[in-house]
Amino acid sequence: MIYKDRNNSTSERVEHLLSLMTLEEKIGQLIQPFGWQTYENKDGKIELTKEFKEQVKNGGIGSLYGVLRADPWTGVTIETGLSPEEGAEAVNEIQRYAIEHSRLGIPILIGEECSHGHMAIGATVFPVPLSLGSTWNVDLYREMCRAVARETRSQGGAATYSPVLDVVRDPRWGRTEECFGEDAYLISELAVASVEGLQGESLDQEDSVVATLKHFVGYGSSEGGRNAGPVHMGKRELLEVDMLPFKKAVEAGAVSIMPAYNEIDGMPCTTNRELLQDILRTEWGFDGMVITDCGAIDMLATGHDTAEGGMDAAVQAISAGIDMEMSGEMFGKYLLEAVRQEKLDTSIVDTAVRRVLNLKFKLGLFDSPYADPKNAAKVIGSEEHTALARKIAGEGVVLLKNEGKILPLSKASGKIAVIGPNADVGYNQLGDYTSPQPSSKVTTVLGGIRSKFAEEPGRVLYAPGCRIKDDSKEGFDYALTCAKDADTVVMVVGGSSARDFGEGSIDLKTGASKVTDHSWSDMDCGEGIDRMSLKLSGAQLELIQEIYKLGKPLVVVYINGRPIAEPWIEDHAHAILEAWYPGQEGGHAIADILFGDVNPSGKLTISIPKHVGQLPVYYNGKRSRGKRYLEDDSQPRYPFGYGLSYTEFSYSNLTVQPEVIPADGVATVTVEVTNTGDMEGAEVVQMYISDTVSVITRPAKELKGFRKVTLAPGESTTVEFTVGAEQLEYIGLDYKPVVEPGEFRVLVGKHVNDTLHATLIVQED
Amino acid sequence: MIYKDRNNSTSERVEHLLSLMTLEEKIGQLIQPFGWQTYENKDGKIELTKEFKEQVKNGGIGSLYGVLRADPWTGVTIETGLSPEEGAEAVNEIQRYAIEHSRLGIPILIGEECSHGHMAIGATVFPVPLSLGSTWNVDLYREMCRAVARETRSQGGAATYSPVLDVVRDPRWGRTEECFGEDAYLISELAVASVEGLQGESLDQEDSVVATLKHFVGYGSSEGGRNAGPVHMGKRELLEVDMLPFKKAVEAGAVSIMPAYNEIDGMPCTTNRELLQDILRTEWGFDGMVITDCGAIDMLATGHDTAEGGMDAAVQAISAGIDMEMSGEMFGKYLLEAVRQEKLDTSIVDTAVRRVLNLKFKLGLFDSPYADPKNAAKVIGSEEHTALARKIAGEGVVLLKNEGKILPLSKASGKIAVIGPNADVGYNQLGDYTSPQPSSKVTTVLGGIRSKFAEEPGRVLYAPGCRIKDDSKEGFDYALTCAKDADTVVMVVGGSSARDFGEGSIDLKTGASKVTDHSWSDMDCGEGIDRMSLKLSGAQLELIQEIYKLGKPLVVVYINGRPIAEPWIEDHAHAILEAWYPGQEGGHAIADILFGDVNPSGKLTISIPKHVGQLPVYYNGKRSRGKRYLEDDSQPRYPFGYGLSYTEFSYSNLTVQPEVIPADGVATVTVEVTNTGDMEGAEVVQMYISDTVSVITRPAKELKGFRKVTLAPGESTTVEFTVGAEQLEYIGLDYKPVVEPGEFRVLVGKHVNDTLHATLIVQED
Repeated sequence: MIYKDRNNSTSERVEHLLSLMTLEEKIGQLIQPFGWQTYENKDGKIELTKEFKEQVKNGGIGSLYGVLRADPWTGVTIETGLSPEEGAEAVNEIQRYAIEHSRLGIPILIGEECSHGHMAIGATVFPVPLSLGSTWNVDLYREMCRAVARETRSQGGAATYSPVLDVVRDPRWGRTEECFGEDAYLISELAVASVEGLQGESLDQEDSVVATLKHFVGYGSSEGGRNAGPVHMGKRELLEVDMLPFKKAVEAGAVSIMPAYNEIDGMPCTTNRELLQDILRTEWGFDGMVITDCGAIDMLATGHDTAEGGMDAAVQAISAGIDMEMSGEMFGKYLLEAVRQEKLDTSIVDTAVRRVLNLKFKLGLFDSPYADPKNAAKVIGSEEHTALARKIAGEGVVLLKNEGKILPLSKASGKIAVIGPNADVGYNQLGDYTSPQPSSKVTTVLGGIRSKFAEEPGRVLYAPGCRIKDDSKEGFDYALTCAKDADTVVMVVGGSSARDFGEGSIDLKTGASKVTDHSWSDMDCGEGIDRMSLKLSGAQLELIQEIYKLGKPLVVVYINGRPIAEPWIEDHAHAILEAWYPGQEGGHAIADILFGDVNPSGKLTISIPKHVGQLPVYYNGKRSRGKRYLEDDSQPRYPFGYGLSYTEFSYSNLTVQPEVIPADGVATVTVEVTNTGDMEGAEVVQMYISDTVSVITRPAKELKGFRKVTLAPGESTTVEFTVGAEQLEYIGLDYKPVVEPGEFRVLVGKHVNDTLHATLIVQED
Repeated sequence: MIYKDRNNSTSERVEHLLSLMTLEEKIGQLIQPFGWQTYENKDGKIELTKEFKEQVKNGGIGSLYGVLRADPWTGVTIETGLSPEEGAEAVNEIQRYAIEHSRLGIPILIGEECSHGHMAIGATVFPVPLSLGSTWNVDLYREMCRAVARETRSQGGAATYSPVLDVVRDPRWGRTEECFGEDAYLISELAVASVEGLQGESLDQEDSVVATLKHFVGYGSSEGGRNAGPVHMGKRELLEVDMLPFKKAVEAGAVSIMPAYNEIDGMPCTTNRELLQDILRTEWGFDGMVITDCGAIDMLATGHDTAEGGMDAAVQAISAGIDMEMSGEMFGKYLLEAVRQEKLDTSIVDTAVRRVLNLKFKLGLFDSPYADPKNAAKVIGSEEHTALARKIAGEGVVLLKNEGKILPLSKASGKIAVIGPNADVGYNQLGDYTSPQPSSKVTTVLGGIRSKFAEEPGRVLYAPGCRIKDDSKEGFDYALTCAKDADTVVMVVGGSSARDFGEGSIDLKTGASKVTDHSWSDMDCGEGIDRMSLKLSGAQLELIQEIYKLGKPLVVVYINGRPIAEPWIEDHAHAILEAWYPGQEGGHAIADILFGDVNPSGKLTISIPKHVGQLPVYYNGKRSRGKRYLEDDSQPRYPFGYGLSYTEFSYSNLTVQPEVIPADGVATVTVEVTNTGDMEGAEVVQMYISDTVSVITRPAKELKGFRKVTLAPGESTTVEFTVGAEQLEYIGLDYKPVVEPGEFRVLVGKHVNDTLHATLIVQED
């Protein structure tokens, strides 16, 4: 059999296999049923369901979605879920059945969520992408993606629905946490790293998985910050901003992409041929597969209302370039019906099937379909990955304020009161798209601080104080009692994207010793939870204000998924750390920073506004955007790129050589950065470009380079950037990239509003 | 001389004149110096300035901006300004000098602001456009435009910078008050009426003026509601929504248009050839003149940064289709320089000059250049116009709440306390783009109510309570004293767009008897005053809350220029009237409604949100825009089309005939409307169309027809609408209008969320 012989080329194998397939078998390749519904867990051994077995025999299954996903949606809990080793065995069993009981023995593409770790029990939970972005450490993120790929593939997961490359322009949006930030260049750098990290050297390696770029495109600019809302955007901005990370990731070799739910100027992405064919395939040369978002085809008929019904929607989708429906089966049923009714040509089906099969061959699934459960047990949640999660979490924390250098706190003496709803509720720090984890695996801020004082447990006090969302103040008294008894108060507040992992058992009045339970009612962030305010939910602000009255040194730690605008806290807290959702090791990472074991180096990748009424405040708006409102200016409270350190860095000697280049030339930018403080630290050296005059309007400043450097006290280094077409071009009058002659300003510094600058001239031809 | 002979055709006259002109004379036609700087007022007689005289001799002046404009910007006050008769004489003198002392005797085009009345001392001040829209009375608005044209032309003003046709999508924007509302169809109907009303039968009539459509285009969708900020919008939405009113007004014969300050997708409107040439002239066949907004050319070089400097900006602008710079002279200087440096071809200058001259000939300025000062004295601020202003103001007031039918108030007995910063500050009710008026001409709410009780002055009490903006509560005690002494409290609060007409002399502690002075510090609305909150400014809410505690019947009247989101007031006030800025007769109009002499019939043309964090909330968003935020739904507090009456209207027997039509067919929709209450009243019968399935996504509902009908108690009428291509088409996949076959829902009722519905089928060809 040609297609089974790995010595043949992939295309030969694909074409041969395709030639053998019935229509039903072809269409079977385009569906993706729920993975967790294919089996039942019988004490760690799985039993395949009758439905699954029948489906395998009746045409087969192209892909399964979330075989190992545990969360309220799947109904799989930490009690009913599988361990890593069991998970790998389960996937093998599913795969084996599919191969051995289907006519042609086609393996299933196991698709898993992996936004910041494999969404499975036992997997390492890394910080959410907003924190990953805040590290500005592309190498570290690539390393994380390698770890995620390793953990996922070790259980047989071959495709991930990561990375999220949306450019966030409205932090009301509940998925802000899932994105790297508001800057297309920074996202592009991370996008490339994600493809390199997830897909590795070659997809057929045991530690490589498919990267699925999402959500293509504009999803971060939905109207009113409402999830999947319409996008109002012109073609130039789309090409230049929102599409850039996708283009870069496609160039880096990404083999899968997911259109966004939203429409742009009236056209849903799911059926947008200009997007999925003209731009993606013809212009960019993408030859991978296109998979919808969950329910996106249905949304065409019942939401966008651009299709008469399910069949019409399915035909429109596949005709526009969709190859597979995510987590759904109706697509297949409709397509079959459409072909039978001669409303769809088989050649269109063939094109989609070819792409799915191509990917499976590339992944080596035909040649080496099974995972090694022993390897899964070894790599998943390994010490190495755990250490990596801690390191990343530490680099993702942004120090927003440090009045009188109150931080780092001294370990030498005094009592610390750790207070707040996020101080010791592990799930709250994991972010959305996380499966429940054993509480022993998650270190909260309280846990992290306690581990610093293992010998002196009496020095650390704890009170939850209140919940995230409800207004009850029944925990205030106990919290005030704790705070009064302490020398320093660390308040851990913010939000939660944790879906209902069981009713909360937190006792606000006594601060029960260990609480990782969580109730749905505390969720104020995550997919589908958009907000019309950027203030802290519930009684949190009031709790902080009450405790502030005690006059103790007050450190506020935010654990949350979108910018918080709380002017009172910004004015009154002595120190503020923004930790986003820092993952399972977040408590250690935050404690490391609080006590100076780690010097903070995270920088904002999203501007933090003063008030929801200022939105949008992203830094790289056009120059004409207006300077103020009646009540206040239009500037954010904390700008893009901002973040303090425990040491100080100074910038000098900015040079651009040569100072004049042709349009296809390259200049070298250098700057000297010195650690002028007394502690080792890492600085993110940021380069912005400003085009002084242009045919089409330009942002005042745009990030076009960055380097994270670590310097010892007194140490200097010269940081070098290259400025060429990639840094200077933009989407011009004719919607094509152009480098226009004229003067550019090159700005280098510690954040967008604190830079040195020099001039670069691009000459006329 | 061919050009002086009115028996020749306009084009012959234009070409002949052009052939005689020097370059300097041509370019002189393209500038528009400040009109108020051409003379000094010497006790009512004017003295022309030396600069003006020299300019006339050295090439001449195409147009003057605001000869009669009085406001802080011009420095002309009610003391230093001219009376209507003097104004007409002054314009005549300017005109005479220009004609008699220039080589070719070309008259000047006198351009004046006329948003809601001629912006001149003595002119009738009608309600602002947001109020005009709220009347939904197109005939009444046309009548107003006739009155404005009459008043303006009677003083020699020949061009107006009205109507504002922007579609408001963000009420944070300070110019919201200057717009009719958020719906393109409603705006289009008013746009046509404005052209008919301003331009009259023929431009050369003594009561006709040029209508300048502005701001072309997208200006109502600026980023963050910040004035002139960048617009993020796709081409389809632009064509379908924002351009529609302009297209209709061009079809109605408008002869002048003004590009907007803003850029769209990176291209400033001022230099957008696709907009100003391909669409406006080629597609729509516009043959009038294009005038920039004030300073818009400069903004290209110092804001948009798409021009190297002033000359580059001027050359770009004229090359893109700009004919004249509004209120500026640099354009001319730069153009002259550019032609001399051979950077601009004279033929491009000629094209612009031709358009300006063409308009002057059409206006009859060459044949009959002078106004009749006696006529000015007669028509300006005439009793007829004053009565019209009162009628329109009454129809523009929207009754938002009327708990327990507390309104109308009885005149029979009891004391009324009229309290609040807008109760008796006349300027505050006039809106932006108004010149100062004698206080005797403006009737405040206090004045209006007092006039109802002329025989019993003791029944009306008054206290200002607080200012609009500052937080001082020094007037609270006096206000509470008044309220305690009254049986009913009418609180008149809101905003102010009145620019500094002199320091305020209002005495908050005693409620000085008559206050029309106003200080700049109370301005919280108007051009350039964008807000990040939709709450009442200053101490106003608190004042209402304090007075509410007295337990008296509480009526709140809003006088302001953008939606107010104050949940506490919406929940606690017994009645709420939204009067916008109701103009000089506003106080009478509001008093008429408060006491039942007029039955309110205004309906919202802009959705009133619950919170600034919900924005945007305009009613005709796409179906995918999302239903809720964590804190609340995404629906406005008061929907589009909403407004209560003192009577009740019931709808029945909605029919569509025929029920099936071809794509080029027409159906007739009828509905029976009955006044089921016990008072005569007017109802705005609104028809919305909903396309069930479409190739491009559609709004859930779109206004496509409305009729305002007046019915006696018990009276019924059948209202008829036509549904054809205009109601059913939209901008399709190929950016052309299309009527797609399929099912449409026809919804008729009292506001967008309270309708009957029926079905209309458009057949396949």
